[in-house]
Amino acid sequence: MPRKLIAGAPDFEEAFEGLVNSKRETDSDVSDTVAGIIADVIARGDAALIELTQKFDRIDLAKTGIAISAEEIASARAACSQETLAALEKAAERIEAFHRTQVPTSIDYADADGVGLGLRHTPVDAVGLYVPGGKAAYPSSVLMNAIPAKVAGVPRRVMVVPTPGGEISPLVLAAAEISGITEIYRVGGAQAVAALAYGTETIRPVDKIIGPGNAYVAAAKRQVFGKVGIDSIAGPSEILVVADAENDPSWIAIDLLSQAEHDEVAQAILITDDADFAARVEAAVAEHLATLPRANIAGASWNDHGAVIVVNDLADAPALVDRLAPEHLELAVEDPDALAGEIRHAGAMFLGRHTPEAIGDYVAGPNHVLPTARTARFSSGLGVLDFLKRTTWVKCDPASLAAIGPAAVTLAEAEGLGAHARSVAIRLGAAAE
Amino acid sequence: MPRKLIAGAPDFEEAFEGLVNSKRETDSDVSDTVAGIIADVIARGDAALIELTQKFDRIDLAKTGIAISAEEIASARAACSQETLAALEKAAERIEAFHRTQVPTSIDYADADGVGLGLRHTPVDAVGLYVPGGKAAYPSSVLMNAIPAKVAGVPRRVMVVPTPGGEISPLVLAAAEISGITEIYRVGGAQAVAALAYGTETIRPVDKIIGPGNAYVAAAKRQVFGKVGIDSIAGPSEILVVADAENDPSWIAIDLLSQAEHDEVAQAILITDDADFAARVEAAVAEHLATLPRANIAGASWNDHGAVIVVNDLADAPALVDRLAPEHLELAVEDPDALAGEIRHAGAMFLGRHTPEAIGDYVAGPNHVLPTARTARFSSGLGVLDFLKRTTWVKCDPASLAAIGPAAVTLAEAEGLGAHARSVAIRLGAAAE
Repeated sequence: MPRKLIAGAPDFEEAFEGLVNSKRETDSDVSDTVAGIIADVIARGDAALIELTQKFDRIDLAKTGIAISAEEIASARAACSQETLAALEKAAERIEAFHRTQVPTSIDYADADGVGLGLRHTPVDAVGLYVPGGKAAYPSSVLMNAIPAKVAGVPRRVMVVPTPGGEISPLVLAAAEISGITEIYRVGGAQAVAALAYGTETIRPVDKIIGPGNAYVAAAKRQVFGKVGIDSIAGPSEILVVADAENDPSWIAIDLLSQAEHDEVAQAILITDDADFAARVEAAVAEHLATLPRANIAGASWNDHGAVIVVNDLADAPALVDRLAPEHLELAVEDPDALAGEIRHAGAMFLGRHTPEAIGDYVAGPNHVLPTARTARFSSGLGVLDFLKRTTWVKCDPASLAAIGPAAVTLAEAEGLGAHARSVAIRLGAAAE
Repeated sequence: MPRKLIAGAPDFEEAFEGLVNSKRETDSDVSDTVAGIIADVIARGDAALIELTQKFDRIDLAKTGIAISAEEIASARAACSQETLAALEKAAERIEAFHRTQVPTSIDYADADGVGLGLRHTPVDAVGLYVPGGKAAYPSSVLMNAIPAKVAGVPRRVMVVPTPGGEISPLVLAAAEISGITEIYRVGGAQAVAALAYGTETIRPVDKIIGPGNAYVAAAKRQVFGKVGIDSIAGPSEILVVADAENDPSWIAIDLLSQAEHDEVAQAILITDDADFAARVEAAVAEHLATLPRANIAGASWNDHGAVIVVNDLADAPALVDRLAPEHLELAVEDPDALAGEIRHAGAMFLGRHTPEAIGDYVAGPNHVLPTARTARFSSGLGVLDFLKRTTWVKCDPASLAAIGPAAVTLAEAEGLGAHARSVAIRLGAAAE
């Protein structure tokens, strides 16, 4: 059974704080194993990749090749249904269109002192996208990770994916092609991350590594951070639905379950102002679970980590939402815009009764790679900016340096940095210690 | 003596690759000590802060108070010279003006399918700024870290600074006041980072921690990452100067030394197309060192980590610059804009013969917190965006959901996620497994 929290009850604040601080991730310390794998790939390159892939994925890369060929991609695509390919292409178009709106503009101006100032964006040279193998290989995630890099103008967009027993989802390869991946390698685990970061004979190194993975992949990303950039380490999925009693309980129940079905440690939370409606949603959850293919997972998540919070007034919801800072926030109320305006911390919002969160997982356009575990308080979903760096610039002539230089000399001397002071003063024709 | 690399020499590529991969940071593993300190602050709060501060900084916070009072700040300000305060205020104004140009705009539109889409920015609720104590307490760094948070609209901007033996730079407190810091606490080290992340009776927790510090502070930031956001871990400073023979060698020499004087492991590199000019710069470095207050540090950096690279043509410089991806790049050439246009990776650029890098450390306006150790390949200097998070949103009505929903159902079913599919299909009036 999910937790029940009733606003106004004497234990509400304590129970809510418990919900905010509940841990769902299971830490497994694989850092030593991973460090060994990384060192092996650095030392032996392709030979290490071949040996580790034989061991973990039971395939012989010396026979198959490390790279996945254009022919393999074409035949994978041919194996997909036209309907699914059309859906992937529609999703890719919509994701690309939304991400194009994120491309930032440069700054370039001269200020009142005559100082030229600016900021420009340049793409990262090469990005590596980790795609999990087996059942966790989602074509939609390929689109969501690869398309922002393409829109940012990253020239090399490299994908790695393990193929345990030689198997790979044709849809994943089709998604890679549709989203403009430029190279694909059939490697996975910490060894794939090491190859992307340090390079091997076959795989040239990249500058940033993104994408989800298991504990070994996450540990490897942490260890190569600094050598390359990484995205955030994603935790189990979450949804918070704020719903009034005018909703169909069955719609709200299936929205809660749509995130619960990801993982036994996913979390689905309902906030409503009507205890009877909450009870009807709970009943509808039970009904849906009777027929859902992933009912075991979704049911475990709902019973172990789910929560139902009844407030006196939905105007009290934003303060609770901000404390939970959910990855996904659905506002199934009459005036969702007004409520959204009161909320400060959420990864992505789904407004109104006709916007199920799942529409954003696939085709709406915004990214589905979002901050989890309350990190929406300080971080953002994946976007074009994650593949661009900012370079600022300054340009002085003798007159503008004369206008602002003396203050720099004063501050450098106050900080005891004589060479800083002198590098400005020497151009002003003045002396510095 | 700095390294000499001559383009065209048989060992050039090997020598340049050696320069690119040279390590200057000294790793010290203090993670166990730091983990103990963090656990202590979580368990005992202010009592731990008081005990650790007595031990490391030899002051009794129970007597002085943990917070620095408005009276102390006012009297610190009164102890600063009017000239220095005026310079700080001019710097603050210019930094604020440049950072205001970085405030991003929201996205809000409906597309051809009638789907409402958008992206908005909200500030982080509370930021903690770590300021090192003693001689490394730079008022300019207080401005550079605090002002972007203020411009972003972060309501709580908290500073922590150790006061060993009770001493604190009056200029640091004045800079904190000028840049709008809202709370200051006299604590430092890993215990200060722990207090910011987890809170104590006196210090409310923040959501993101920024600012430089020693190995203990860096390790503490790494350990609290996830609970709060952190900025990147800064390495030793670097400057790369590209200069033709038309420059005054003395100007270029002092620019190289302005970063070398930061740290024995700082790095200054000259790229020029004229070997005679390179020799004149080296001679000028020796002359400056004879009279600089921090000659010992600057000389050690130049001799141990400096480099002089002579190319045949300055058109060959951009490829080398990109491989080094320097923190600071000075282009002291006739047409710096053209050269800048060829470069992809640099933290900040200083264009022309009259723009010494040090002008950017203090008063130009762009931030001086910049990516080091080749991380400009994938990361950026501090800016307003570091204190804002992006929240995307989607809004469908029945018609727009009908337009895009079927593709989402198809993809969800292809991924085996039945609740995802059903949450869309149920609103389309259709069945899903």
